[in-house]
Amino acid sequence: MYNKTMYELGSHRSVIRDLFEFGKKRAAEVGADKVYDFSLGNPNVPAPDGVKEAAEKLFALPDNTVVHGYTSAQGDADVRKAVADSINARFSAGVTPDLIYMTCGAAASLTVTLNALCEKGDEFILLAPFFPEYSVFVKAAGGTPVVVPFDEKTFAPDLTALEKAVTPHTKGIIVNSPNNPSGAVYSRKTLEKIADILSAAGEKFGTHIVLIADEPYRELVYDDIEVPYLMNIYPDTVVCYSWSKSLSMPGERIGYIALSPALNEKEAVYAAVCGAGRALGYVCAPALFQRIAAACVNELPDIEAYRRNRDLIYSSLTEMGYDCVHPDGAFYLFVRSLEPDANAFSDRAKNYGLLIVPGDTFGAPGYVRISYCVSYEMIKRSLPAFRALIDSYKK
Amino acid sequence: MYNKTMYELGSHRSVIRDLFEFGKKRAAEVGADKVYDFSLGNPNVPAPDGVKEAAEKLFALPDNTVVHGYTSAQGDADVRKAVADSINARFSAGVTPDLIYMTCGAAASLTVTLNALCEKGDEFILLAPFFPEYSVFVKAAGGTPVVVPFDEKTFAPDLTALEKAVTPHTKGIIVNSPNNPSGAVYSRKTLEKIADILSAAGEKFGTHIVLIADEPYRELVYDDIEVPYLMNIYPDTVVCYSWSKSLSMPGERIGYIALSPALNEKEAVYAAVCGAGRALGYVCAPALFQRIAAACVNELPDIEAYRRNRDLIYSSLTEMGYDCVHPDGAFYLFVRSLEPDANAFSDRAKNYGLLIVPGDTFGAPGYVRISYCVSYEMIKRSLPAFRALIDSYKK
Repeated sequence: MYNKTMYELGSHRSVIRDLFEFGKKRAAEVGADKVYDFSLGNPNVPAPDGVKEAAEKLFALPDNTVVHGYTSAQGDADVRKAVADSINARFSAGVTPDLIYMTCGAAASLTVTLNALCEKGDEFILLAPFFPEYSVFVKAAGGTPVVVPFDEKTFAPDLTALEKAVTPHTKGIIVNSPNNPSGAVYSRKTLEKIADILSAAGEKFGTHIVLIADEPYRELVYDDIEVPYLMNIYPDTVVCYSWSKSLSMPGERIGYIALSPALNEKEAVYAAVCGAGRALGYVCAPALFQRIAAACVNELPDIEAYRRNRDLIYSSLTEMGYDCVHPDGAFYLFVRSLEPDANAFSDRAKNYGLLIVPGDTFGAPGYVRISYCVSYEMIKRSLPAFRALIDSYKK
Repeated sequence: MYNKTMYELGSHRSVIRDLFEFGKKRAAEVGADKVYDFSLGNPNVPAPDGVKEAAEKLFALPDNTVVHGYTSAQGDADVRKAVADSINARFSAGVTPDLIYMTCGAAASLTVTLNALCEKGDEFILLAPFFPEYSVFVKAAGGTPVVVPFDEKTFAPDLTALEKAVTPHTKGIIVNSPNNPSGAVYSRKTLEKIADILSAAGEKFGTHIVLIADEPYRELVYDDIEVPYLMNIYPDTVVCYSWSKSLSMPGERIGYIALSPALNEKEAVYAAVCGAGRALGYVCAPALFQRIAAACVNELPDIEAYRRNRDLIYSSLTEMGYDCVHPDGAFYLFVRSLEPDANAFSDRAKNYGLLIVPGDTFGAPGYVRISYCVSYEMIKRSLPAFRALIDSYKK
C-alpha cells in the first residue's frame, strides 16, 4: 500500500521531536519557566526590518500577478543576478547568474544537488559531526553515505581518515562550516588540505569529486573568524545556501545553489540541477521570498545577540566543569556527555528540565548539542539546572 | 559527473519553453502587440485582496520569529485545522487535521504522494489528456506510467480501456478534473464508473488502488457545473490541492495533501507522506503563505473574468470552423489540429504570431492547447490571426 522506506522515515520519531513532546508535557507539570529547551535550531533573533520593508514594497505593486506568479524554474533572472553580484562583491568568485539556481531552502539545495549528481554506486562523504538529514538525503538520492570521523580537540575532520575514505566511487563530499552541531569553523589550512586530498584523488582515479559546501551558517561567525569561500579553494565546488538563519526566516524556505565557474562540465551539471528540481516537484522557489531575499542579499543577522548567548553559556558551562570546544560560529555548543551514553545523559538532563540533543545521530556519540538561539534570560534561568546536572554525577 | 536522467530532464527544452523564447524574438521583430501568447497557465486575474490583507496582518505581528519560523513538517496545526474545516464545510468529507499535510504546491503534493506510495514494479494510470509532468513525477518516484486514452467527443476517459489497463501492479491513478489541458469536468456518473472499476479490480487482485485527485482547478468551473468530491465517491482517495490558480499565486508554492478518512491504512500512508516530504527535502511548506492560504481558504477566484474569456474565444473559434469541445472548467481550450501533426500546426500558427501548445506531450497528439488566462483584449486582438490561420488551410 505504501513505500516502506518512506514509512520508516516518517514514522520514526526523531530524538529532537521526542524532546519537544517531553518539553510540552513537563511544562504542563512544573511550569514553562522551569523547562529549558535547547533542542531546536529555530532562530530567536527577529528577521531584519529589510524583510518587512521589501515585502511592503512588493505588496504595494499595482499588478500582483507578476509578484505571485511563476518565476522561471531556475529563479527570477533579476534575483539570480542580485545573488551572483553579491557573491562576487564579497568573494570575487566570478559567478554568473546562469550558475545560480534558486531553491526552497537549504534542504532543497542539498536534495536537488545530490539528485543531480548521484548515479548508481556513488558514495558521498560526510564529515562527522554532521546534520543527520545529510544521510537521509544521500540515501534518498540513491547514494551511499561514508562517514569520516573528527579530531576531538578541534572538531576538524580527521584528514588521514578522509584520505582513506576517498575511492573511485566518491562522487562528492559535504562540507558544513560553520558547523551544525559543533559550532566549529574549519580553518583555511584545513580546507586547503581537504581540497588537496580531493584533487589528488580525482587525478589518481580520473574523476572530479564535487565539494558540496552547505553554508546556512556562513553569516553566523564571531570574533572576525574567517570563513573561506570554497569556490576560491577548490574548483569542483557547489555552494548550497539558505537565508533561513541569516535573515531569520527558516519557515519561508528560500535559498540557492551556486555552481563554481571552474566546475567541471558546469553547463551539464546545471542542466542536471534543473532536471532534479523538476523531478522532485519544486517548479520554482517561492516567488515573493525570492525577491525579498534579493532585496536583503547584503543584510547581516544581529550577530551580537547570538554572541552574548554564546559567551554566557560557554563561560558558565566550562566554569562548572563541562567540557566543550569554543564555538566560533553557528548557534550551537557541542558538549561532551558526562557519561559514555549521551542518550542516557540527555535523559538525565530532562529531570532538570534541560532539553539537549544526544550526538549519536550527528555521527558523534558521547556528545550533546545545545542550541543557544534562545532568549538570554532563559539561558540565565537554566544555569542552576546545568549545575545541578553536573553535581548529580559527582555524588 | 552527473545523473544522466536528470540531465535529460533539465536539458530537454520543453515545447512551452520553446514557444516562450520564440515569442520574445518575434515580439522584437514585429512588435509585442502582434504576438499572442496562449502557451502558459499563469493566471492573469490578480490575487484577491484577502491575500494582501492577510499578509499585512501577519507582517504587523510584534514577533516575526513565529511568522517566519519553521512550522512542523506536516504544516502549522491551526492551518491544517482551517483546511480540514473548509473541506468538511463544503463537502462533508469528515477529514481531520491529522490527515492534512501542507505542501509546496501541486507538484510537491504529487511528488510527495507518489514517493510515499510507490514501490518497485508499481504502475500508475494517467488518463489522457494529462499534464505532461505526471509522467516525469511517476518515473522519478520509481513507478511506470500507464496511459489510458480518451473519448474524443467528451474528453472523458475511455472506461473500457481503463478496465483493461488495471493490473495487480496498479498502485494508483491520477484523476485531474477540471482537466488540464482539455478544460473538461468529469461527470459524477463517469467518476462513479471509475470508482467501480477500481473497487472491482482491488477486490479481484486483493489490492487497494489509490485514486490521486489532482485538483488545482477545482474552483475554476463555469455554469454551475458540479465537481464531485472524490473522497465521497471512492474510499481510497488522496486529494492533491494547490492555491496556485484559485488564489492566483502559483509562484508562492502552497498547497496540501488530504487523505480520505476511509483510506486503507491511512495512518501508515500519512507517515509515508511525512517520510517522502523529508526525503525530497521539503522540511515544511512556506510558513507565511500557509497562514495566508488558511486566512483565504474560503475565497473564490474572479471566475467571471475567465468566463468572459472562454465565451469569447470558444464562440469565435468554433464560428470560424475550429473544432473543440466546450470547456466547463480550468482556463484551457483543447482544439483539434488542422493537420494530423499538431507540432506542424503549432509551427504554422507561429507565423501568425499565435503561440499554442501541441498536445503530444499531453498524451493527445492531433490537438493543441490554448490557455485563455490572458487579457480579454489580447484575445480580441488575436482573432484575425486565428482566422488567417484557418484560411491558410483552405488555400
